[in-house]
Amino acid sequence: MAAEVLAGIDTVWVVITGAMVFLMEGGFALLEAGLVRQKNAVSVMMKVFTDSTFGVLAFWAVGFALMFGRDVGGFIGASQFFLLGGNPPDLHIHIGAFWLFHVAFSIAAASIISGAVAERIKFQGYLLFTIVLIAFLYPIQGHWVWATNGWLARMGFLDFAGGAVVHAFGGWSALAAALVLGPRIGRFDGTRNFAPHSWPLALTGAFLLWFGWFGFNAGGTMAAGDPRIGLITANTMLAAAAGGAISIVYSLIGRKGKADPGLTVNGALAGLVAITPACAYVTFTSAVIMGVVGGFLTSWAAGFIESKMVDDPVGAVAVHGVNGLWGTMAVGLFATQGGLFYGGGAHLLGVQVLGVAVISAWGLVTTGLVLSIIKAAGLLRPSKKAEEAGMDLSMHNVAAYSDNQDQEAGASRINVVPKQP
Amino acid sequence: MAAEVLAGIDTVWVVITGAMVFLMEGGFALLEAGLVRQKNAVSVMMKVFTDSTFGVLAFWAVGFALMFGRDVGGFIGASQFFLLGGNPPDLHIHIGAFWLFHVAFSIAAASIISGAVAERIKFQGYLLFTIVLIAFLYPIQGHWVWATNGWLARMGFLDFAGGAVVHAFGGWSALAAALVLGPRIGRFDGTRNFAPHSWPLALTGAFLLWFGWFGFNAGGTMAAGDPRIGLITANTMLAAAAGGAISIVYSLIGRKGKADPGLTVNGALAGLVAITPACAYVTFTSAVIMGVVGGFLTSWAAGFIESKMVDDPVGAVAVHGVNGLWGTMAVGLFATQGGLFYGGGAHLLGVQVLGVAVISAWGLVTTGLVLSIIKAAGLLRPSKKAEEAGMDLSMHNVAAYSDNQDQEAGASRINVVPKQP
Amino acid sequence: MAAEVLAGIDTVWVVITGAMVFLMEGGFALLEAGLVRQKNAVSVMMKVFTDSTFGVLAFWAVGFALMFGRDVGGFIGASQFFLLGGNPPDLHIHIGAFWLFHVAFSIAAASIISGAVAERIKFQGYLLFTIVLIAFLYPIQGHWVWATNGWLARMGFLDFAGGAVVHAFGGWSALAAALVLGPRIGRFDGTRNFAPHSWPLALTGAFLLWFGWFGFNAGGTMAAGDPRIGLITANTMLAAAAGGAISIVYSLIGRKGKADPGLTVNGALAGLVAITPACAYVTFTSAVIMGVVGGFLTSWAAGFIESKMVDDPVGAVAVHGVNGLWGTMAVGLFATQGGLFYGGGAHLLGVQVLGVAVISAWGLVTTGLVLSIIKAAGLLRPSKKAEEAGMDLSMHNVAAYSDNQDQEAGASRINVVPKQP
Repeated sequence: MAAEVLAGIDTVWVVITGAMVFLMEGGFALLEAGLVRQKNAVSVMMKVFTDSTFGVLAFWAVGFALMFGRDVGGFIGASQFFLLGGNPPDLHIHIGAFWLFHVAFSIAAASIISGAVAERIKFQGYLLFTIVLIAFLYPIQGHWVWATNGWLARMGFLDFAGGAVVHAFGGWSALAAALVLGPRIGRFDGTRNFAPHSWPLALTGAFLLWFGWFGFNAGGTMAAGDPRIGLITANTMLAAAAGGAISIVYSLIGRKGKADPGLTVNGALAGLVAITPACAYVTFTSAVIMGVVGGFLTSWAAGFIESKMVDDPVGAVAVHGVNGLWGTMAVGLFATQGGLFYGGGAHLLGVQVLGVAVISAWGLVTTGLVLSIIKAAGLLRPSKKAEEAGMDLSMHNVAAYSDNQDQEAGASRINVVPKQP
Repeated sequence: MAAEVLAGIDTVWVVITGAMVFLMEGGFALLEAGLVRQKNAVSVMMKVFTDSTFGVLAFWAVGFALMFGRDVGGFIGASQFFLLGGNPPDLHIHIGAFWLFHVAFSIAAASIISGAVAERIKFQGYLLFTIVLIAFLYPIQGHWVWATNGWLARMGFLDFAGGAVVHAFGGWSALAAALVLGPRIGRFDGTRNFAPHSWPLALTGAFLLWFGWFGFNAGGTMAAGDPRIGLITANTMLAAAAGGAISIVYSLIGRKGKADPGLTVNGALAGLVAITPACAYVTFTSAVIMGVVGGFLTSWAAGFIESKMVDDPVGAVAVHGVNGLWGTMAVGLFATQGGLFYGGGAHLLGVQVLGVAVISAWGLVTTGLVLSIIKAAGLLRPSKKAEEAGMDLSMHNVAAYSDNQDQEAGASRINVVPKQP
Repeated sequence: MAAEVLAGIDTVWVVITGAMVFLMEGGFALLEAGLVRQKNAVSVMMKVFTDSTFGVLAFWAVGFALMFGRDVGGFIGASQFFLLGGNPPDLHIHIGAFWLFHVAFSIAAASIISGAVAERIKFQGYLLFTIVLIAFLYPIQGHWVWATNGWLARMGFLDFAGGAVVHAFGGWSALAAALVLGPRIGRFDGTRNFAPHSWPLALTGAFLLWFGWFGFNAGGTMAAGDPRIGLITANTMLAAAAGGAISIVYSLIGRKGKADPGLTVNGALAGLVAITPACAYVTFTSAVIMGVVGGFLTSWAAGFIESKMVDDPVGAVAVHGVNGLWGTMAVGLFATQGGLFYGGGAHLLGVQVLGVAVISAWGLVTTGLVLSIIKAAGLLRPSKKAEEAGMDLSMHNVAAYSDNQDQEAGASRINVVPKQP
């Protein structure tokens, strides 16, 4: 009995945490929609829907197989395409539960990037990119780290919950995307109003992300009886709080006593990203320190990236790229087993630096390449006129909001519900 | 020890999934509020609160007893009124947990209908209807399927998580409601602006529904150790993704390359509804196929229903009615045990067609009857003037939004909204 | 094996319910943001972020130690500062999980108060207060009730899930805060428009709170196998439904047939608060009665408090203070073990009255004192000009919403994204 019951309980744990990770899509959608201009609010939410539909199918058909299928040389997996072939031999829970958890991770990676390309990408181009990302780019590097025989896994690289695989990969892909796309019209000439169109939506999104993150970090144990779950979830809370707190201090000091909501949110998210690779390996105190550093780095990096005239509307690079890098390296410093500060020497630190550097470079280069091809095909950037009109109207033929004033005869009816085809 | 511990774990599983199903009320509220006009946004959310208050009490006092009380002739239950009398003998978890899960189901059925009657029903009429629905109409047909001795259960009818009991029943009740109420003023003469007043709210609602659906479909196992939970949840995700994806394709093709958010959301929900009755019985691949068919059917049906000048503001019939029907019948095709495509012959298919037809007809007829009586009593449709003013003002004396401009003496207090760019 | 596995399962239960309690912060943020004026919407959400960042760190460093550290005379704890020192000897789950659950409780208490001080408090003053509240005021009284040797615990005082410790304490602290701060400019002279700026946000917040409350009430079992979990969660649902239903009736009768969304939401929350201390001790029927009384008391109290010209923008005192008091006393009436109505005599009732009175007084006096000191230091109330401009602009330099109209050259740019420091 025991083994079956335990497998059942573990399945339930993975399924619940997987659902929590999926809810982060709602968090991303709200955060990104709130931070962009009103005329693009629907289009960023539709990107998250694209991840959650085509992205999910891509991970079902191909991505999962490349990530967790039978290993080929430590570099790629190659079985269980379309989830056919049943449970892999070394998986103690049902493949459906395991897949659910990991498909939610894969679309989280995509949703990081969708923020960086907001307000200026063709829907069809984004759709194509997402499919390639989730079918190929994400799972291949994921295999290196999380498949038993992945080359980084064999070197002893530690990434407990995806600080490198999801956040560094996603964050540096986001930088490539921002560079290939270029800035939004008028972003750096001071004539336009890029104020977030709805702070309440953005701040609500942050709470959904934070909630889901408990599942994101703890579900990876794949076992309800894992004795580290208490440590993991408390570390997650502490790093988020520390990242948010330091960012409030940073903005109070730097902005004449005004606490900035954008820095606050991104600081808390920075803490969450920073602790993600390390959550099971470090002490409570280290989690606070990692969060403080993460919040500070993000607040600083957001300004730095803007000063270089790179247009990242939601701060995806500063939050996910920078802290995926920081957190993964910090494992080499703070891990109670093998970390430099705990007498483990520099070996683990070296492996961590190598691993996260390779993964970041992989994201940067492959995303840059794929988007450049899409650009060459004319599917990337909409016309100037379409961009000025807003993606909601030009890509989706809707407006985010309507006050439902009735039209006078003959007036244009752009807000009316589109007719069925 | 073992049995007690297992019962405890099962209770926890049912309670957590029950809470997730309850959160779907928030999803319905947001989805419906976002899709209606601004002047009716509060009123649709108040309907969901009505379900969650009076509806819950109705299921406590009467509904649960009729659904799960001591069987009378396979047609109705008749004990445990007001949850008195303790645990039924064959229930291995605490009656409170079992009730919580099922009360959340009962109000989900009501919330399907609340969308179809949006913008044009008196609050008192809706209140009355909800009580009758949850006390009598819903639980009676639920007894047929989910009570051990229910007449459909005894025939071998399969509805794992409520594709017939909740969605077909709710969806076809919604059609009756739309027919008895008639269309909103100006709905089919082209002079009014019925644009969804807030796509961000509507899309957020879809994510809450999707999240809760993992609990909706998997919690019905009533056992944390049920080996099907991995299959169920992965199938849920796959069908939703497939339904959403095909709807994006459908709208890209039918609307000159514009991906429609309404079709996308309803397509994903269609996939979720379609897999609901089948989630534990079919393969991953079948889940994708069922989702694709569901998404297509919904996209097509929404246009068809509109062309017949039936006014269903949120697409409740196209999503829940059509796919409750489709998914329940599809069990007879795709079930690996007994399905036509798996060598099971036509017997199961016949039972499925019969069962879902009876349940749909039950919803259509009883709801039509009850609402006709309420109509005859003058409690159904508000005056033309009240409808033009909007339900928020005429039923609840509030406006959904206020910009809080201070009043000049004597100025009207209709609240303003930000203009579109 | 058994003990370890059970500890693991209990940890998972506490962690999941703890995450649900944390999501209530999102609920508080939405509810409070929706109910205030547009110009203060961001500032109330930032208060909740303050609780979730500085508040969390305060509970890590000090609060947890005072609440659950080694007992000193039944009055205070004094070990495990900064979560150092490992698991306390009598804690069967990991200290991280236990801390996570309780830190979420501590910030819930703070978020009750943040509603009462909305629209008229300096950010720095609130920040200071929150730190003192969560580091000292909340945990000290929490020790009395929930530490094994707390003086109220030893007297047999029963507060299952925080009706006294969180809600009465928070609610009466909120009254002190409202009194020390005084009313918003123009609140009682009838010239201003204090309409909730967004009912959809407020109502959504209520659903998140309601969802999280299942974790709030049931997680305190600290054991997945606790046989009371079914009872607890069903009671939670029943009391919420009853409180909301009676409030709908109350407003239909008192307001000429118009069902008021504010009374409805606060009635449902009142039911939730009322059942919180009692959820594991009373029958289903008692839960309904307690909810009905709670909903009625809140609807009445909200009017009474307003008539006394005490300005509590979200009804924190009427919901949490009044029902924390009512529910905790009602344990002495309805508890099946020891309650007056169940033949237990007046002893338990006496203890309950004493305990909740002391805790309410503690909240009222200590919060009044601390805020008076902050006031004397000039950190409490912003200038009249700053208040008229709104806290969002004067404290955070943002506007909640922007329609993103582009600026004319030279025009003021209040909506523009603030520059990096």
